[in-house]
Amino acid sequence: MLKSKAFTLAQRPIGFADEKTFNFEEQALRELEAGEVLVKILYISLDPAMRGWLNEGKSYIRPVQIGEVMRAGTAGVVVDSKADGFAKGDYVTGGGGVQEYHIAKAKDLVKVDTSFAPLPTYLSVLGMPGMTAYFGILDTGQPKEGETVLVSGAAGAVGSVVGQIAKIKGCRTVGIAGGPEKCRYVVEELGFDDCIDYKNQDEHLRSAIKRTCPQGVDVYFDNVGGEILDTVLTRINMKARIVICGAISQYNNTTPIKGPSNYLSLLVNRARMEGIVVFDNVANYGKAARIMAGWMAEGKLKNKEHIVEGLENFPTTLMRLFDGKKMGKLVIKVADE
Amino acid sequence: MLKSKAFTLAQRPIGFADEKTFNFEEQALRELEAGEVLVKILYISLDPAMRGWLNEGKSYIRPVQIGEVMRAGTAGVVVDSKADGFAKGDYVTGGGGVQEYHIAKAKDLVKVDTSFAPLPTYLSVLGMPGMTAYFGILDTGQPKEGETVLVSGAAGAVGSVVGQIAKIKGCRTVGIAGGPEKCRYVVEELGFDDCIDYKNQDEHLRSAIKRTCPQGVDVYFDNVGGEILDTVLTRINMKARIVICGAISQYNNTTPIKGPSNYLSLLVNRARMEGIVVFDNVANYGKAARIMAGWMAEGKLKNKEHIVEGLENFPTTLMRLFDGKKMGKLVIKVADE
Repeated sequence: MLKSKAFTLAQRPIGFADEKTFNFEEQALRELEAGEVLVKILYISLDPAMRGWLNEGKSYIRPVQIGEVMRAGTAGVVVDSKADGFAKGDYVTGGGGVQEYHIAKAKDLVKVDTSFAPLPTYLSVLGMPGMTAYFGILDTGQPKEGETVLVSGAAGAVGSVVGQIAKIKGCRTVGIAGGPEKCRYVVEELGFDDCIDYKNQDEHLRSAIKRTCPQGVDVYFDNVGGEILDTVLTRINMKARIVICGAISQYNNTTPIKGPSNYLSLLVNRARMEGIVVFDNVANYGKAARIMAGWMAEGKLKNKEHIVEGLENFPTTLMRLFDGKKMGKLVIKVADE
Repeated sequence: MLKSKAFTLAQRPIGFADEKTFNFEEQALRELEAGEVLVKILYISLDPAMRGWLNEGKSYIRPVQIGEVMRAGTAGVVVDSKADGFAKGDYVTGGGGVQEYHIAKAKDLVKVDTSFAPLPTYLSVLGMPGMTAYFGILDTGQPKEGETVLVSGAAGAVGSVVGQIAKIKGCRTVGIAGGPEKCRYVVEELGFDDCIDYKNQDEHLRSAIKRTCPQGVDVYFDNVGGEILDTVLTRINMKARIVICGAISQYNNTTPIKGPSNYLSLLVNRARMEGIVVFDNVANYGKAARIMAGWMAEGKLKNKEHIVEGLENFPTTLMRLFDGKKMGKLVIKVADE
């Protein structure tokens, strides 16, 4: 009987998650039932949203329960199948969790083509972060040619794609990221027009926005919340759209979340602040993936994965999401095929 | 030569405005030029937005300058005209300011029919508060039949109209107001389904919203900001619309405005928060006024003005806007004809 190691939730963290948050357990896999597929997980997606899933209380998704395998997006290979349409050797993505193997219903898996893009890309640009960026910037941000789009977390998995899509749509595109290395990456490799280093002590963020967005901000795509959101609100244009995608600066708070005290700028500027959740667009993932794959093939959309080897490194790698040091999409490699 | 008394801005207030904020001066009126109209002001509209006009800094409208006549919406009668289309005895509304007479260009005046509604009504339901309510709830709130609409400042000039329009559109309509007298007015006279007394110490606001809006809140029309906005955010439905019309709880702050710390509820619920300014709809005021006049004639839209006599009472009356005691639209009567 096949065994599978898994990280399960041991206790709900206060502030940052750490090693005590999870148990690392080995479980025997049960037999497949009709319509089910056994997947060997090769890559696990690490996303800031995971921190929210550890909290109790109503949210856009059910919290992970104590004792449950930690939820995660995964990419892997089929090792056994009792479902039509899936055969041994097929590559698939799904919500497999932080473990070595998972049993899934066929409807919860998506077959992917690794001859077009490597498997981890299906966890980044062609996966949840890419879909978040695509629908968030286009449907909610609604950027128009010539407008200015500002993106926080610009070197991250979502922000990097948001900015590149804004460039494709003909916008002046400015990122916000922490440190000169990330800013260089955002401008030189991803092609943003400019990038603000919010950790730079020599320039106030408000001045930096004024300098890099001289026409004001028409669309702000927010991944970080906190002071950055509040400051951007002072520089928005009439009818600006603010896309609330996340608030990574606030996820590990042990004190109440800081609300945007400049929210009345929405009134002054007849502007809109709107929240998005990627899962609402699941019916259109395929179409978006085809369009983004086309942009990748044309060299207009670039992709960076930061791959950490070893399932056992999950808790420490999860903490790296919040230390502000990684660039691109953070992925754990669980196994070779 | 005709003389006119006026309140001019003496100094910018910190916190509440008071008698020292204004000078009360008498000025000689200049001769009319071609295209101008001299209006004797009979009624002056008092609006919470006035407090914002006293602050320096960028907003949706130029601040009133030191020495300038205080800006205000007015209704009056033409006493002299050098403009086509306006004759002595015509009733007009305009932005005449806090004074006895004003000289206006014809294009800045609107003739009104006092045989249909009394003159002060053209400063309330058929004036700026009514227009704010009409466009704010219908265009931005977009209430659908059967949805729940929650309105703060429900006994006020804007909120009272918002709720009545929501009822006309077939929504469950709940108000928030301060004190049992206002709540009774909102339910019994205006026909709201329910009204929450936010000053009631026996029930937490969050519980009261849960009790009165058992299906959650689809549209929240916010006139008050602060803790009430923050609490409502915990009870909104998926795809809720939050209309930011004002923040009367914050206008006299001497400390930074309190931002809505529950703003991430926008993300969880894919909801939208959007600011409105009535002046954007000026091209459609006429159409809205005709529709609302129709509702008034049918008895579906009721109206209450709180009229204070005497121009000299302007500073103390302005302060009454913020003491939470008046109901309906606050108007100063300046003169008989």
